[in-house]
Amino acid sequence: MQYQCMQLIKEREKMEINGVDIKDTFAEAFGIQVSRLLITAATKKLAKVAAVEATGYGTSVIGCPAEAGIDCYVPPEETPDGRPGYVVMICNMDKKKLDHELLERVGMCVLTAATTAVFDALENPDEKLETGRKMKFYGDGYEKQMEVDGRTIHSIPLMSGDFLMEHDLGIKSGVAGGNFFIMAENQPAGLLAADAAVDAIKAVPGVITPFPGGIVSSGSKVGSNKYKFMGASTNEKMCVTLKEDVEGCEIPENVNGVYEIVIDGVDEEAVKAAMKAGIEAAVKVKGVIQISAGNFGGNLGKYKLNLQDLF
Amino acid sequence: MQYQCMQLIKEREKMEINGVDIKDTFAEAFGIQVSRLLITAATKKLAKVAAVEATGYGTSVIGCPAEAGIDCYVPPEETPDGRPGYVVMICNMDKKKLDHELLERVGMCVLTAATTAVFDALENPDEKLETGRKMKFYGDGYEKQMEVDGRTIHSIPLMSGDFLMEHDLGIKSGVAGGNFFIMAENQPAGLLAADAAVDAIKAVPGVITPFPGGIVSSGSKVGSNKYKFMGASTNEKMCVTLKEDVEGCEIPENVNGVYEIVIDGVDEEAVKAAMKAGIEAAVKVKGVIQISAGNFGGNLGKYKLNLQDLF
Amino acid sequence: MQYQCMQLIKEREKMEINGVDIKDTFAEAFGIQVSRLLITAATKKLAKVAAVEATGYGTSVIGCPAEAGIDCYVPPEETPDGRPGYVVMICNMDKKKLDHELLERVGMCVLTAATTAVFDALENPDEKLETGRKMKFYGDGYEKQMEVDGRTIHSIPLMSGDFLMEHDLGIKSGVAGGNFFIMAENQPAGLLAADAAVDAIKAVPGVITPFPGGIVSSGSKVGSNKYKFMGASTNEKMCVTLKEDVEGCEIPENVNGVYEIVIDGVDEEAVKAAMKAGIEAAVKVKGVIQISAGNFGGNLGKYKLNLQDLF
Amino acid sequence: MQYQCMQLIKEREKMEINGVDIKDTFAEAFGIQVSRLLITAATKKLAKVAAVEATGYGTSVIGCPAEAGIDCYVPPEETPDGRPGYVVMICNMDKKKLDHELLERVGMCVLTAATTAVFDALENPDEKLETGRKMKFYGDGYEKQMEVDGRTIHSIPLMSGDFLMEHDLGIKSGVAGGNFFIMAENQPAGLLAADAAVDAIKAVPGVITPFPGGIVSSGSKVGSNKYKFMGASTNEKMCVTLKEDVEGCEIPENVNGVYEIVIDGVDEEAVKAAMKAGIEAAVKVKGVIQISAGNFGGNLGKYKLNLQDLF
Repeated sequence: MQYQCMQLIKEREKMEINGVDIKDTFAEAFGIQVSRLLITAATKKLAKVAAVEATGYGTSVIGCPAEAGIDCYVPPEETPDGRPGYVVMICNMDKKKLDHELLERVGMCVLTAATTAVFDALENPDEKLETGRKMKFYGDGYEKQMEVDGRTIHSIPLMSGDFLMEHDLGIKSGVAGGNFFIMAENQPAGLLAADAAVDAIKAVPGVITPFPGGIVSSGSKVGSNKYKFMGASTNEKMCVTLKEDVEGCEIPENVNGVYEIVIDGVDEEAVKAAMKAGIEAAVKVKGVIQISAGNFGGNLGKYKLNLQDLF
Repeated sequence: MQYQCMQLIKEREKMEINGVDIKDTFAEAFGIQVSRLLITAATKKLAKVAAVEATGYGTSVIGCPAEAGIDCYVPPEETPDGRPGYVVMICNMDKKKLDHELLERVGMCVLTAATTAVFDALENPDEKLETGRKMKFYGDGYEKQMEVDGRTIHSIPLMSGDFLMEHDLGIKSGVAGGNFFIMAENQPAGLLAADAAVDAIKAVPGVITPFPGGIVSSGSKVGSNKYKFMGASTNEKMCVTLKEDVEGCEIPENVNGVYEIVIDGVDEEAVKAAMKAGIEAAVKVKGVIQISAGNFGGNLGKYKLNLQDLF
Repeated sequence: MQYQCMQLIKEREKMEINGVDIKDTFAEAFGIQVSRLLITAATKKLAKVAAVEATGYGTSVIGCPAEAGIDCYVPPEETPDGRPGYVVMICNMDKKKLDHELLERVGMCVLTAATTAVFDALENPDEKLETGRKMKFYGDGYEKQMEVDGRTIHSIPLMSGDFLMEHDLGIKSGVAGGNFFIMAENQPAGLLAADAAVDAIKAVPGVITPFPGGIVSSGSKVGSNKYKFMGASTNEKMCVTLKEDVEGCEIPENVNGVYEIVIDGVDEEAVKAAMKAGIEAAVKVKGVIQISAGNFGGNLGKYKLNLQDLF
Repeated sequence: MQYQCMQLIKEREKMEINGVDIKDTFAEAFGIQVSRLLITAATKKLAKVAAVEATGYGTSVIGCPAEAGIDCYVPPEETPDGRPGYVVMICNMDKKKLDHELLERVGMCVLTAATTAVFDALENPDEKLETGRKMKFYGDGYEKQMEVDGRTIHSIPLMSGDFLMEHDLGIKSGVAGGNFFIMAENQPAGLLAADAAVDAIKAVPGVITPFPGGIVSSGSKVGSNKYKFMGASTNEKMCVTLKEDVEGCEIPENVNGVYEIVIDGVDEEAVKAAMKAGIEAAVKVKGVIQISAGNFGGNLGKYKLNLQDLF
């Protein structure tokens, strides 16, 4: 069966970067509603504390109430209030759910965090959600409207000072589930390559890698063969410890470590730039053998992002 | 009005630690269902990545789907699988919701994280939730049952290796909302004292400080005076920027920075130990003037934790 | 005596930013030989580990063998080898000592660190030190010369792979001891403002803040009044706990927390840009009262950096 | 030649842990003068900033002025001043050099760091160095002597408050250069195992791993075959990229990643406990093939720490 795996690979078109095989396949990605906000605070560390709390429990909308993550750090001289900040992205397929998530994630995890403020950071929005307008009612009449850097801002008095938040937050139709697989000699090689990929992707604006540390160690298939009540289950053809046990294994014979990088972005271009940067970083790590990607045959998702077309 | 604040204080019984006034009041705390799990991984950093993702968006059940946080680090020689790990606590008032949160937070944020395993870490549980038993179905028949350190463990094959999870996770009736206020000369002094308090509380087992960085910058009251559709709104009597503007201000005249530490714990003793450790740390910081606590008159919560009784 | 302090201040020219007094004084800075190198590694974290080790024990040449620190992070797409890296600066008044420090700090702290490489990152050098050429002899004949991104590189075989280092490293006459004082209501306010200042300075290229965390808690005077064998001793006129005890106190009456930010840079312009960015960040923090600067009357240092001229 | 490597291994006595070969060899370690101090600060983060700066540029006395590192974190309730702290170790073969290093590393990197204090943390010292007594002269007569937790402490006024330091610091004859090699399938596997080993060693009191991140990527031999002016050079028999090119290669054929963990400790027992904990952690990582150790034939160092005797 493993021999068969290798055959399949040999039949495809060959592309190599740094000696690593780039499989002739595509990532299948989906439409999602994306918001992008800037959280500033008195210090970089305080801004990060809020950004991390607000984007936790946000790996995939399959089980989490949102997909969320940190996009990038913004130094003080480039933010509306001249303080250091982090841009985060919070996403959901459903606009109403996204509205709810923005209100709760900002209200419970940013407003409550020390010295923070929130500004819209989405370019070219399709529309605006009035998260700030709704948040201001928390001020119970003591809130004030002001302008900061040309933006309409609500200042809400809190115990420790005033929380500033922009009136509305842009949302737009973005892309979820851009991805690639790192197929490596062993688990540590896959992991180091995944870390390197995530570092490279952090430098691409407009994207997040919503899984823990940006890395996915599990791969799912739709449904389950054995347990009919399960909507999804492990993709046994991609499991390194099942190589000898399942038919149709999709892991090359010399691969014993597989990690996936999943990318959400403001648009297809951003996701493709992130995939490219991530793959170029991953192939530099010793022990990486192949880069592949995940799809469902191309019938489920709106976007087909071919790996070889990235280069 | 500020003069009146000071008067009120003078009428109470006096207690001081390190020159800081400990107000004669109590924290009003609530019952909550508590789970406590150990997440191990190949390295301390990998365990933390999973623990942080799984406990994010978990400051307060008022708006978050759970209250969650990291309790403590456990070195490799003290864990069931001999790998470094973090103990996290995930809590909800409602047992069914807690069951759901455990399944999703572990399934989406820990199982997906690189090299992780999950073990029960709650002593003296009231009952057990079969999170691990439910999770195993993700293995689609390829899962295996084994014993690790005397525990029943399910091994679920994933892309990058096998995810190990204990069959059931204990839950028990614990305490939510233990708290104290740090009243300081200015915002930075309150913040540094809050940081010091959180550091001290981290050394107390069985508790979490679920807010961002362990610190709360906002204080709420039930309902709203102006906006009747709001279930909660800012507690204007505790806002430093409203000292001149509201009647019945509860902030001493020389206080211009107020932060709250909120504590959830496995039981009343753990929460009280955390409050004590946190307060003793906070009063060491320059610029701290008073320690107070939040309550609702004592009629809402199950627990009344008097500050002066802690010492 | 404190009254007298306030008088002195009132006599000077007034400048305020965000309500904070900018004292009409100057930082006295010195010439120093500056090197600037890029340390890359497989991941951002691995590069940081090496950069931190190589720049430790490097606050001031008064007692440390060099002044050293991290300038900035460089994302993979901007480095010669396409991997993430940190730019560090290592400085000494004496060219021979700098040569020695480069050799030992790179040889003992970067070459020994996992997956690293070293490239020159100094623009417009006065001259070049052949640190890489000397380092290559460690290869005992197994070293190889190659070109990376147009640079002459030595590849030195190590246990875990090959260490790449550029043939020579530029040095130039730069500036040491650019500085400003943050005078605050209390210690925590000074500290938070100092943190904010350091965050802002990190975004200015070509500078480091070599003290621990970028912050100096001590201020020295030349010599000692009581102990003649001491070359330097505490500047009692700047000590918040001695305000009542010394004559000629230089701390405003309402100031009880003083921190200094010290800046080394590749040239005067970089240091001035850093001072400006740092001060603008510091004055945003609550409880900051005055920004001042340290000098020795203007007769010792080559550079006089007037605070008010920065704006 | 590689075949010959394998032969040599087969001739030795066999020991395996978790399927990883523990080579029948010993680490050769040396005597060193060890100091161990506790650095406390207002917060855990502030204590770490000082500890990191004070122990930088401290991998090996071959080229660094000391061997230094962080031993462990100490929570507030266990420190003399009730604040969080880090225990660091600073070591040198030469007592006079150690005296100098203590004075400068504490004076330049801890005294200058925000909110710090320094206490002795060495049990059973051979003798005491009066670092604190010397440091007090920096106070220029404004220093005060006091007692904290039964210790003689000097309080030295600084700009931002008073720096507290214990009168003397214990030193004792300890052990340097305890070590083991991780031989892995590839570089990332060796690196992840090294990370896991360092995490495990952190839980052993009385030891440090002084190299960057605790990991050594280079291995040296005494002298050089080609360049007679070199006192040390790369150990070509241990270089993974020279396996095909040198005679007498000491790397097993299937090994392509080698990292060393070097340990300094207060005594032989501590170093052996650290080696044991580190090895037990390393062998848990996938792709690790063999654990070996470094020695010079046993004639140079005072201590021979046999790997197989650890278990």
